[in-house]
Amino acid sequence: MSQSIDIAVIGATGTVGETLVQILEERDFPIGTLHLLASSESAGSSVPYRGKNVRVREVDEFDFSKVQLAFFAAGPAVSLSFASRATDAGCSVIDLSGALPAEKAPQVVPEANAQVLAGLKKPFQVSSPSPSTTTLAVVLAPLMDLLDLQRVSLTASLAVSAQGREAVSELARQTAELLNVRPLEPKFFDRQMAFNLLAQVGKPDEQGHTLLEKRLVRELRQVMARPSLKISVTCIQAPVFFGDSYSVTLQSASEIDLAKINAALEDAPGIELVEAGDYPTPVGDAVGQDVVYVGRVRHGVDDLSELNLWLTSDNVRKGAALNAVQLAELLIKDLL
Amino acid sequence: MSQSIDIAVIGATGTVGETLVQILEERDFPIGTLHLLASSESAGSSVPYRGKNVRVREVDEFDFSKVQLAFFAAGPAVSLSFASRATDAGCSVIDLSGALPAEKAPQVVPEANAQVLAGLKKPFQVSSPSPSTTTLAVVLAPLMDLLDLQRVSLTASLAVSAQGREAVSELARQTAELLNVRPLEPKFFDRQMAFNLLAQVGKPDEQGHTLLEKRLVRELRQVMARPSLKISVTCIQAPVFFGDSYSVTLQSASEIDLAKINAALEDAPGIELVEAGDYPTPVGDAVGQDVVYVGRVRHGVDDLSELNLWLTSDNVRKGAALNAVQLAELLIKDLL
Repeated sequence: MSQSIDIAVIGATGTVGETLVQILEERDFPIGTLHLLASSESAGSSVPYRGKNVRVREVDEFDFSKVQLAFFAAGPAVSLSFASRATDAGCSVIDLSGALPAEKAPQVVPEANAQVLAGLKKPFQVSSPSPSTTTLAVVLAPLMDLLDLQRVSLTASLAVSAQGREAVSELARQTAELLNVRPLEPKFFDRQMAFNLLAQVGKPDEQGHTLLEKRLVRELRQVMARPSLKISVTCIQAPVFFGDSYSVTLQSASEIDLAKINAALEDAPGIELVEAGDYPTPVGDAVGQDVVYVGRVRHGVDDLSELNLWLTSDNVRKGAALNAVQLAELLIKDLL
Repeated sequence: MSQSIDIAVIGATGTVGETLVQILEERDFPIGTLHLLASSESAGSSVPYRGKNVRVREVDEFDFSKVQLAFFAAGPAVSLSFASRATDAGCSVIDLSGALPAEKAPQVVPEANAQVLAGLKKPFQVSSPSPSTTTLAVVLAPLMDLLDLQRVSLTASLAVSAQGREAVSELARQTAELLNVRPLEPKFFDRQMAFNLLAQVGKPDEQGHTLLEKRLVRELRQVMARPSLKISVTCIQAPVFFGDSYSVTLQSASEIDLAKINAALEDAPGIELVEAGDYPTPVGDAVGQDVVYVGRVRHGVDDLSELNLWLTSDNVRKGAALNAVQLAELLIKDLL
């Protein structure tokens, strides 16, 4: 039995893919050969790994039987086209696109529902959920026994980096133009993003919900194994480069013991609880970190059955790439 | 009976006071003599009114019997020191500080509870609520008959201008420093405000609630005449210069008819409803406007008894100064 496995990362040139490769190296994941893949437009460039530049090749031409595990971090279309081809060739899949059906590729956040992994048989497909789902699941999981949870209400203030490098450049460019009193010409965003808030991320459906909002509700219910949990959600775009933030209200059917909540958050894996009176910020705390920061833990204003929290996490790292690597670490014994 | 009244504006050099003077001029409010007042630090400067620069004098030395109405826009301490002195001298008071007790100075938003004004006898004291209360009350008022309202959950993303000119300069300065890769030195804010979100505006109490959050709950219950309405609130500071935004979820005991909600919002005074699929932004819509912009009107994701809204309004203008002037317009017949 080999002590390392051969791996493919699809979407290696994107923000999540590149961070994923970096985390695999940082955590010394036992990789034999690493294959970096991307769509034809991005192939040809290279990504650093263990002091070398690894050439990125076209996913279309890749023979998945050469690897035991593939991370899909290139978006829904690529996952829908190639994930089955991978498993047909005996290669297991960790998918970050949200495109694979839950029946085939269950959504898993190690801190919340790692037990689901025990049921997988290789070559398996497993989904690493959206950054919002991951962040919320990490924090809700240790609280479920302490609440008779009736409803989650949340406003997610998302960083522009979730939309890729172009969005990051555009926020910087717009900001510089405004500070220099030059006329603003929105390109990537359809209006002024600098010093502004956009109340909708992506196109809404007939009912007014965006794909992100529906994905969060669907995934969170699945990860928390609460298929009919009421979740009120609004995702907005904030003029922040990296790090998502969440204003969360949990309604319980009975009074909530804050001391127990704080103790549970203090003990739980994947969480850094900031001290009472203080609060974490995306820029000052979350960015580059492996944990979800939690602060402003409090009841409602005269409502003891309400729990309010403020969460912030690195959307690219903790929200996406690290969760996928954590899944791989839990699954590797089945793949070696 | 005179066709004009003499007026004092206290806090005339602040962002709200200056806007208030501007709105009095724009709306041709029938003013005999306008007295501009401020604390000793700000006295001596001047503020433009009808083509002239009006000198700002010290409030300590002012004889309130010279005016029939005084707007207090200088903060809680000044209102607590001088509002009674004004009414004792026969001068009615419109207070924007939130410091006067509700029994003496009821909170009023013309679009929501103008009927309260009928009970006032001069010299009266009336409160113009916080920008958040004003904005929410304008929008909730026309919906109350269409909902069996159980709870309001909201995250308010506040502009830095609510904290005055220093906060505005600091956001600009911090942003320029970061774009020029110079070391960041927070002064007004205790940490990086540019490209960041601060989850707490002001110091929290023992329970973790800020004054702003408690004020909003208290005032909104009063204006809506719903003393035990459940209101979940988090106020955060966004890197936005002007214009507050609100992500709002309303829970009703029964199914909500969206067509009726939209029709009511369309007809209501003080509201601009943007078309379905679009959304308003603070910078692009609200700033400088006399209405609250409403968008993203939708049910919950598979919850028809939930109503979600996105609101944005000019916090200085619609949220504060204009509301006070609207109150004066409704009350002037009693003062002439």
